[in-house]
Amino acid sequence: MVEFVSVESMRHWVAREGAEHLIAQLAGVVEADLRRWRRFERVPRIASHSPVGVIELMPTSDGTHYALKVVNGHPDNPARDLQTVAAFGVLADVDTGYPLMISEMTILTALRTAATSAVAARALARPSGRNLALIGAGSQAEFQALAMRAAVGIDAVTVWDTDPAAMDKVARNLHGSGLRIRLASSAADAVAGADIVTTCTADKANATVLTADMIEPGMHLNAIGGDCPGKTELDAHILHDAHLVAVEFEPQTRIEGEIQQVSPDFPVTALWDILTGDAPGRTADAQVTIFDSVGFALEDFSALRFVRDALHGTDLMEDIDLVAEPSDPKDLFGYTQGSHAGQESQPGFAFSASARSLPA
Amino acid sequence: MVEFVSVESMRHWVAREGAEHLIAQLAGVVEADLRRWRRFERVPRIASHSPVGVIELMPTSDGTHYALKVVNGHPDNPARDLQTVAAFGVLADVDTGYPLMISEMTILTALRTAATSAVAARALARPSGRNLALIGAGSQAEFQALAMRAAVGIDAVTVWDTDPAAMDKVARNLHGSGLRIRLASSAADAVAGADIVTTCTADKANATVLTADMIEPGMHLNAIGGDCPGKTELDAHILHDAHLVAVEFEPQTRIEGEIQQVSPDFPVTALWDILTGDAPGRTADAQVTIFDSVGFALEDFSALRFVRDALHGTDLMEDIDLVAEPSDPKDLFGYTQGSHAGQESQPGFAFSASARSLPA
Repeated sequence: MVEFVSVESMRHWVAREGAEHLIAQLAGVVEADLRRWRRFERVPRIASHSPVGVIELMPTSDGTHYALKVVNGHPDNPARDLQTVAAFGVLADVDTGYPLMISEMTILTALRTAATSAVAARALARPSGRNLALIGAGSQAEFQALAMRAAVGIDAVTVWDTDPAAMDKVARNLHGSGLRIRLASSAADAVAGADIVTTCTADKANATVLTADMIEPGMHLNAIGGDCPGKTELDAHILHDAHLVAVEFEPQTRIEGEIQQVSPDFPVTALWDILTGDAPGRTADAQVTIFDSVGFALEDFSALRFVRDALHGTDLMEDIDLVAEPSDPKDLFGYTQGSHAGQESQPGFAFSASARSLPA
Repeated sequence: MVEFVSVESMRHWVAREGAEHLIAQLAGVVEADLRRWRRFERVPRIASHSPVGVIELMPTSDGTHYALKVVNGHPDNPARDLQTVAAFGVLADVDTGYPLMISEMTILTALRTAATSAVAARALARPSGRNLALIGAGSQAEFQALAMRAAVGIDAVTVWDTDPAAMDKVARNLHGSGLRIRLASSAADAVAGADIVTTCTADKANATVLTADMIEPGMHLNAIGGDCPGKTELDAHILHDAHLVAVEFEPQTRIEGEIQQVSPDFPVTALWDILTGDAPGRTADAQVTIFDSVGFALEDFSALRFVRDALHGTDLMEDIDLVAEPSDPKDLFGYTQGSHAGQESQPGFAFSASARSLPA
């Protein structure tokens, strides 16, 4: 049997433990895995594009566990009451090749994206920062706000979105959280005076959510919405003006991130090198730092292991009958035969006649 | 909700419909999809190798549906009572990006591999052939035998395996099937006089299951066991001597198939070109033809669609709670909040102190 974490189980877990608590815990796991980065298989995600969206595979392995996330990105989905990003994941045992767990990852992706943003902000943002500007009030927004409190202790959030209802939703959801929430009148209004700016918009297009004139000394920009070819959020001038652009996995980010707008030799710094101390991060308060986040398979690996470790053997974990277990491993055929074993069927063979290439 | 086909459902279905009937039906679906080959996304499978095996992803799409198989190959698994190959698959809707169905594919892979062998044999083997030599008596063996009856009407099977118990298993499972079964004393003994030779052994190594001296005029070789780098079954001389080597997807077969033993410009013919009449197949009875089968994602696509079409809305299909469905698609956060919404948690933040790169 394979363990299964349903959407309902994930909802119960998040409600019970609190999103901020889980994000903070998961940030520790993501950071630990990023610090042992060289142990992991690293391949850019495998994307299947269509005119309306993308379906992506994000696999990785550390030699003990294998993790895979299957995730879509369909910006027009909310207009038909569907998620822009829906996902599920698999954790497998490298030794046997067998799946250990299937989990919903729509909610879990929001947690892990927020956790990764927290890791980067804790490494790069000024520790004195208290004000977060949140550009984009979609599915990720509240998770991002809580992550930034967990990471650096922000206490005020200014929200901007072109959809007023989405802004109201963020204010409603974070009411009583202890965070002071202000709804902005524009992106520039939201960004003014912010210590950290998180952009999480979902257009599948090159959009300029932030322009260079909005950027103030000392800001940390957490750019998570630009994550596939042709989809960016930052004015390229912002990249050129910044002190440091941190990335997860450079070959993937060159294709999918904000830096697709600049030349292939534009200097970037690997986040894991900053975490291990192999590369400097922020070295002065006035510097502008950017985390050009696109999401990498390692973060999903961390998230799946985190969930399994937390829920294994609890009532939030179900079993599903996904892997055949014949008593004789070589007798898969016998395993499929009930009372019908050995029957001689006369099937209506479904080949088309024109497929034959044999001489008559 | 996502539809789910469990192992138990698949077993019931195969027992009820008969493996040969399903293989024959599925062969028609695989052939139809191979004939519209150019409509499909084609990427070689994405493999994660370890010292003991491999976990592979096999995705494809025709622009309407997206299919993915997750499959392992662990030759030492049977020694610990596990399957060499276990698999599950996903069928998704390209328009929304959402998964439609998760299915067991350990059994289904055996059906689709047999169905693909049937498609190739019907296109390439002499239609007068009645004798099958089956080299390898593992999980695939009986499915292959039934597929060859469905494809060209073989009525006798000679089996060889280094494991006598596995040979006995095949004889037992096919007893009463109407096929005459003989257990051979060697590979050469099994192959002598055969019209079709199917090799389905599982060593993760270059093995020489067949040597050139065993090959007789007119034979069709169905080589399905060699399917990853370093894993082959045929003496390279057999490839050079053959009239025609048919492949599924040349870039993948060059890496994984029997033809990894020969030069990169060794001529091969795409199976789909033979099926559409764009390339000749067998043109004389005395020719030796080879299907260098490694398994391609399109065949899994066909199999998943076939299963869904057959089982949709029946009691063999369950629902699993895999995709979050918040009433407001932008309110994923609110969807995760029960009575805990808006709580102010004080998480024990799990970062390691040494991760900080900030100035003090």
